[in-house]
Amino acid sequence: MSPEGTDSIGEGDRVLLYLDPRRTWLIQVKRDSSPFHTHAGIIDVCALIGRRFGEEVKTTLGESFRLLRPVTLDYIMKSERRTQIVYPKDFAYISARSGIKNGSRVLECGTGSGALTSYFASLVSPRGLVHTFEAREEFYAIAKKNVQKAGVSDFVKFENANLLNASEIQGSSYDLALLDTGDPWTLLPISHRALKGSGFAFCICPTTNQLEIVATSMKGLFCDVESVEIMLRHMEAREGKTRPSMRMIGHTCYLISGRKILQSPIENIKSAEPQGEIL
Amino acid sequence: MSPEGTDSIGEGDRVLLYLDPRRTWLIQVKRDSSPFHTHAGIIDVCALIGRRFGEEVKTTLGESFRLLRPVTLDYIMKSERRTQIVYPKDFAYISARSGIKNGSRVLECGTGSGALTSYFASLVSPRGLVHTFEAREEFYAIAKKNVQKAGVSDFVKFENANLLNASEIQGSSYDLALLDTGDPWTLLPISHRALKGSGFAFCICPTTNQLEIVATSMKGLFCDVESVEIMLRHMEAREGKTRPSMRMIGHTCYLISGRKILQSPIENIKSAEPQGEIL
Amino acid sequence: MSPEGTDSIGEGDRVLLYLDPRRTWLIQVKRDSSPFHTHAGIIDVCALIGRRFGEEVKTTLGESFRLLRPVTLDYIMKSERRTQIVYPKDFAYISARSGIKNGSRVLECGTGSGALTSYFASLVSPRGLVHTFEAREEFYAIAKKNVQKAGVSDFVKFENANLLNASEIQGSSYDLALLDTGDPWTLLPISHRALKGSGFAFCICPTTNQLEIVATSMKGLFCDVESVEIMLRHMEAREGKTRPSMRMIGHTCYLISGRKILQSPIENIKSAEPQGEIL
Amino acid sequence: MSPEGTDSIGEGDRVLLYLDPRRTWLIQVKRDSSPFHTHAGIIDVCALIGRRFGEEVKTTLGESFRLLRPVTLDYIMKSERRTQIVYPKDFAYISARSGIKNGSRVLECGTGSGALTSYFASLVSPRGLVHTFEAREEFYAIAKKNVQKAGVSDFVKFENANLLNASEIQGSSYDLALLDTGDPWTLLPISHRALKGSGFAFCICPTTNQLEIVATSMKGLFCDVESVEIMLRHMEAREGKTRPSMRMIGHTCYLISGRKILQSPIENIKSAEPQGEIL
Repeated sequence: MSPEGTDSIGEGDRVLLYLDPRRTWLIQVKRDSSPFHTHAGIIDVCALIGRRFGEEVKTTLGESFRLLRPVTLDYIMKSERRTQIVYPKDFAYISARSGIKNGSRVLECGTGSGALTSYFASLVSPRGLVHTFEAREEFYAIAKKNVQKAGVSDFVKFENANLLNASEIQGSSYDLALLDTGDPWTLLPISHRALKGSGFAFCICPTTNQLEIVATSMKGLFCDVESVEIMLRHMEAREGKTRPSMRMIGHTCYLISGRKILQSPIENIKSAEPQGEIL
Repeated sequence: MSPEGTDSIGEGDRVLLYLDPRRTWLIQVKRDSSPFHTHAGIIDVCALIGRRFGEEVKTTLGESFRLLRPVTLDYIMKSERRTQIVYPKDFAYISARSGIKNGSRVLECGTGSGALTSYFASLVSPRGLVHTFEAREEFYAIAKKNVQKAGVSDFVKFENANLLNASEIQGSSYDLALLDTGDPWTLLPISHRALKGSGFAFCICPTTNQLEIVATSMKGLFCDVESVEIMLRHMEAREGKTRPSMRMIGHTCYLISGRKILQSPIENIKSAEPQGEIL
Repeated sequence: MSPEGTDSIGEGDRVLLYLDPRRTWLIQVKRDSSPFHTHAGIIDVCALIGRRFGEEVKTTLGESFRLLRPVTLDYIMKSERRTQIVYPKDFAYISARSGIKNGSRVLECGTGSGALTSYFASLVSPRGLVHTFEAREEFYAIAKKNVQKAGVSDFVKFENANLLNASEIQGSSYDLALLDTGDPWTLLPISHRALKGSGFAFCICPTTNQLEIVATSMKGLFCDVESVEIMLRHMEAREGKTRPSMRMIGHTCYLISGRKILQSPIENIKSAEPQGEIL
Repeated sequence: MSPEGTDSIGEGDRVLLYLDPRRTWLIQVKRDSSPFHTHAGIIDVCALIGRRFGEEVKTTLGESFRLLRPVTLDYIMKSERRTQIVYPKDFAYISARSGIKNGSRVLECGTGSGALTSYFASLVSPRGLVHTFEAREEFYAIAKKNVQKAGVSDFVKFENANLLNASEIQGSSYDLALLDTGDPWTLLPISHRALKGSGFAFCICPTTNQLEIVATSMKGLFCDVESVEIMLRHMEAREGKTRPSMRMIGHTCYLISGRKILQSPIENIKSAEPQGEIL
């Protein structure tokens, strides 16, 4: 790939072909790539090598595509079998609230299609890790593929297992536990043990019922409990005719978070062993 | 400071004292720290050394505080003279959309109190940079102090200058231009030159009028232009009584973004010099 | 009072003194009224007789107030001990959805401070009725006073009683059952009997838990069940600086409605008696 | 038609056939009506006479429809060529804020498909009037038809004309001026003259640009100026799985209102003639 800091497209680079906000394609550029066919014409992919990101390319039908450098979000939005109901507005908030960055360690359950996995792996690289659990064989395979495409596999440890049965999680070693399953409250005790003191647990809850159970279950394990819903509305900003978009996604999920609390020192001495190891 | 991965509070560590969501204090722990006075009693700060993050500490009045490890967001929320109308929901979205991470280069104007500066510096560390411009002497000084407190000064280059007059910005070298001034559209051409091909410009617009001018001004310089408003509502999740919070911030700002486009190769040859250098 | 259609203020008229959106006063004008004192000066109330609605009046301190003709909403917003969490956006939607107008018959429980009572009484006048139940003696008294001030007492029948114990409600005779209590689902069966076929029941639910129980309880009694939340955000429309207001009420209540269904004719014959009479 | 208060369907009654929230049909019942065909089977319309509102009817395919009594909103939602972007949440708020009820006089421009016309005609009946202007011949015809179907033609005076050219509007005689055109600010002066003192003008503005011009143009003519946006989100209330609907209409329009102000008495004497007459 081309070294960072230059704009030229090199062998093996991935490129986001941009026609308009709703019509984009993610391709990989190689010297032996076949031409890429779209309804708007054919693009000679090999000829993109040496072109610069941001430039225009014409199809055989004369349509103009922009050559964009994909960022993690572009990979996520193009993921195979995207099952997540979590949107950029949501996982962006999770990362900002929990302070995830290079070197952070994230425990995730379940992996799903690997969208959140890819996003957090990108943030924690190169020194951190996303340790992710997915019990369903099918999703495990899809997620691995999607994360690889996003180029962040080196920072992800995949487990095709149920987190509840995990025997080798290092206690008190994660900065964030990210729970995106149907019953995240069942994973709060094990997440508590896995987290560093004061580390964040975040649960993704589509329904108010889940939210309520998580809130109740966090008591005694987590403090600074916060529940939010984030709504995003597009604006159509046009000269003399600016207004919100008439189309809007009404709801994705609620997010609930807490920070791990520890018992006081005296009690800790007694419970030091179970505290430091998972089961 | 204590090495990452252990939970113990060490000499020089900063600690977020947590009483409840509205009452938190950010302190630095040193062997010679004076006792910390709150309305809820006095805390012996020196004695916090060796305690673990997540533990409880009692004041002289018997009130319990939690010892939390501050993340960047906690520093931002405790910044001196916070002038920003940008909230976590907003800057989180900017970072996720533009794919900012370790190694990214961000150009910011203006610095304000340094809230966004700290957030992005945390994300780009240790290999990246936030290059930030603030013409107002007073804010320049405050921002430097706030960023230092957040522990990310090493990844920020401050300029007490107007970006428009900047002579030494390296062309085509930034991943994100972050414009948070009253007239961000005036900074779009210089931001365009500073950005890598396909790099993101993000403008923070409190009003629809600003949004409209930016949208119009982006034409011919940026593609994939997107305007959004993000709303956050807290939920009160309690057993049998779950509902949205009655208090809500109605509006902070609109966010508008675009990705830098380049002329086609032939034209680029002609304009190579001005393209690669700022002014 | 002055005949409708003329703008002059007459003996006994109520006037809304308007200084700005947050400072308004509702007064009654009589020939022997005392001067009205505000922080912005004194107003000679008697002298308002003969003035026209829409005109300006100066206080002794030279401040200008507008003389506005109060509409029902103004009375509601000025009600004594307003306990309602229902806002204009909410009760407006209820009336529009259920088609309440002159001649409609509304069954309400509980009366509270009489805000909804006044609003619906105004709409059903002069041929309709709001039949309202309030078990709490204290609210019963306050509501009577508030409704009288709003000038719509003639269209309201007050009951200081629990609707569940009501013995004289005429079956199948109401167009709308409006349930604003903590456990509205307990009132659904009696409301069903009181309503005309296809008539509307509307429940006001602050929490998602209440909403869920009502939705479940409506099954078999009501069709076309719809749950909504209505949010209102003020805009600050100013030349060159238009934006949403930063202050907003985050939540008032959810509204859930259904239309009464009847058994088929054959079954109806058998159950004709209980269907037509309440208890 | 059947007398109000009884539930039986009579000759000439309109019935809303309800299958589910998205599949409803509005029909008229006559002794010689043809059978009504739907994808869910055929209904014998004549046989509905004598049935009661709220009952069930089976199609030839065994599907169950509910027989609902249509309210004005049902007529509006079934209007031919509905062009309005105004939704129940919006016109409900207008009526509640301006206090429209039996006897009120409403001036509307433009009529569009007659949706707002029907709604307000229903509220002002039987003693009030909606006086509505529509310059476009095509819409004028459609609106007349739609309002007739809704059964409220008696309370509407249609004008196929531009309100600006109207010569016979009675000055100071309307309670509400309802402006739903592309440039409502041009109609503010004539609306001001048409309104009673303290009467309401309401403008429906899809864009922030329109909103801003109206707000500026209201100065000196109207007080208590208020701009709002109303958002409605459906809830899916189901046992154990309650959450907001994922589908939502993002925006319909902004609403801006003001109350007519008058000059002080002395000036009024001078301008009494033009004040009382339109042009």
